[in-house]
Amino acid sequence: MTVYNFAAGPATLPDPVIQHIQEELPSLQGSGMSILEISHRSQMFDDIINTAKQDIKDLMHVPDNYHILFFQGGGTGQFAAVPLNLATNHHKIALLDSGHWASRAGDEAANLGVDVDVLASTKEQHYTELPKMPHPISSADYDYLHITTNNTIEGTAYHTLPEHGDVTLVGDLSSNFMAEEYNVQDFGLIFGGVQKNLGPAGVTIVIVRDDLVKHVDHVPTILDYEKFVKKNSMFNTPPVFAIYATGLVLKWLKDQGGIAGIEAINRKKSSLLYDFLDNSELFNNNIKKSDRSLTNVPFKTPDPELDKQVIQAADEAGLKNLKGHRSVGGMRASLYNAMPLEGVAALVDFLSDFEKQH
Amino acid sequence: MTVYNFAAGPATLPDPVIQHIQEELPSLQGSGMSILEISHRSQMFDDIINTAKQDIKDLMHVPDNYHILFFQGGGTGQFAAVPLNLATNHHKIALLDSGHWASRAGDEAANLGVDVDVLASTKEQHYTELPKMPHPISSADYDYLHITTNNTIEGTAYHTLPEHGDVTLVGDLSSNFMAEEYNVQDFGLIFGGVQKNLGPAGVTIVIVRDDLVKHVDHVPTILDYEKFVKKNSMFNTPPVFAIYATGLVLKWLKDQGGIAGIEAINRKKSSLLYDFLDNSELFNNNIKKSDRSLTNVPFKTPDPELDKQVIQAADEAGLKNLKGHRSVGGMRASLYNAMPLEGVAALVDFLSDFEKQH
Repeated sequence: MTVYNFAAGPATLPDPVIQHIQEELPSLQGSGMSILEISHRSQMFDDIINTAKQDIKDLMHVPDNYHILFFQGGGTGQFAAVPLNLATNHHKIALLDSGHWASRAGDEAANLGVDVDVLASTKEQHYTELPKMPHPISSADYDYLHITTNNTIEGTAYHTLPEHGDVTLVGDLSSNFMAEEYNVQDFGLIFGGVQKNLGPAGVTIVIVRDDLVKHVDHVPTILDYEKFVKKNSMFNTPPVFAIYATGLVLKWLKDQGGIAGIEAINRKKSSLLYDFLDNSELFNNNIKKSDRSLTNVPFKTPDPELDKQVIQAADEAGLKNLKGHRSVGGMRASLYNAMPLEGVAALVDFLSDFEKQH
Repeated sequence: MTVYNFAAGPATLPDPVIQHIQEELPSLQGSGMSILEISHRSQMFDDIINTAKQDIKDLMHVPDNYHILFFQGGGTGQFAAVPLNLATNHHKIALLDSGHWASRAGDEAANLGVDVDVLASTKEQHYTELPKMPHPISSADYDYLHITTNNTIEGTAYHTLPEHGDVTLVGDLSSNFMAEEYNVQDFGLIFGGVQKNLGPAGVTIVIVRDDLVKHVDHVPTILDYEKFVKKNSMFNTPPVFAIYATGLVLKWLKDQGGIAGIEAINRKKSSLLYDFLDNSELFNNNIKKSDRSLTNVPFKTPDPELDKQVIQAADEAGLKNLKGHRSVGGMRASLYNAMPLEGVAALVDFLSDFEKQH
């Protein structure tokens, strides 16, 4: 039975990448040493990390005045790193509360003593649409504006960025990182864990504009942008394997036609599912159409007990991890870069059959 | 040619572990999903992380009033986490400066605003021996005493812990973690990256006594012990693969007779090399004998140019990564848990032949 993994992250990876890793696991480049054993100070790893950086630069058209960094600690780590490094002038940031993870980013900034101004929230609408900017904002008031470009749990995404005036825009791209095209120059800083679209859990990519990188007192070294820039992300031992595996996914992404290529496939995948849901009399996705995510599609039947049956029967049919987040309930299909169109077609066939039987 | 990797970390892993990972990489436990793809909220991963915890508990005889946690960020992360979570009363800690990494731990605590009292240092002796406690200390003055049990760069280790009165002892065990027996109860907190003795880079084990875990304001979540205790190290996405691979090494370690078993082998390995060095007329290890490390053995010829030849010729003979740290020069052989006795025997044979020819 072919298994399709719809998990929200860590998530499915391209088969050729898994195969590549498996084949060279005992001996990297004929060295007699595994990627799990090589020193991060070796020439082999230097090539791996620098190639990964170059491939990110190529794929996202990262301008020369941006640094590409690799951290540990995921999005949660960056929820701390960003305010610690960037909220140094006003100690005040703006936030659009588009869902669980946007809210968590605000909580962490507040936990670190930063003043968080929630400009707008769609919490009362259960985050079924994106919050809109209520008024223009200015860098005279805020160190930056934080947005979550794709809301993993709620299934919304900014396909057009909010107007942010001259305020530095910080984007948490975790769940649509390189799944959809964004213009890096629109942001002062981008971050995202790789474990959804780009690799296994264990490494976080940060892309930050040069003028935002400066010395700040009392920042823990593992969250310090300036130290990571100076040491090419190797102030301390980096997560060697996770960077290597991500590098292989980046090569695969280039083979798919880069981000434009994969976005076209991702649109096809999500349209296939949304079209089915919009025409279904049993299943429903209640997200405002213009705000729908390409990568995370939540849906429900009218009956939570029936949802459980769907999840169970899908699991038995090899369609794994469709359970929705506990805060939303129902089902959620995550259609990240490595989910093939065939997987979504199999899901739609399954749901269609299920509907006929119920 | 058999390759032996003497790197200081990331370092060699047991062959059966690499083989195991390779075999089940495409499908973990017949799930059709790779360990690189499974959710950290899955039953499979729950079993993996809890089994790893239990194996650590068994191997180190961890008492019930200690928590076993998995972090990202390595020793450098813990250099921040420990003072942020523990230096909350006096905001003052004591430190024995036994080498580069002890000194770095002190620097990071100071960077975070903690007062660091270096009780003793052997810097003037180029760290060729361990510093001694100059006077008794009291918990009325210090939040804790920080020691580095094994000094990776300099090649020394505390085989007997320093007298620390009623002051909480914090041990950075990174480079002899489970390579040598320590009594967990002697410490309030132990930490170490796994990438030397226990696994691939990407996960850090923390063992902390219950009474030291409490709420502290303004601690970044990814360094917050209380939050990690509450969420079984899964407040956010953990480094799934690194924990899995470490779990396999822990099982292997049990097969070696646990820590007592591996320590006996490690003593045999290091004695073989030290005996050769002590009888050599060309090579020399200048560390005080009672303070010598079991896991890191620095050595030199009288001539830096000859050292380069040794490193080059060894590399060609399959004895890899023998270059000493730049601050010490010469050679360094790291003999972590997974380095087989045969590897050390091959090194001694090589050095012996080299000496005869020079």
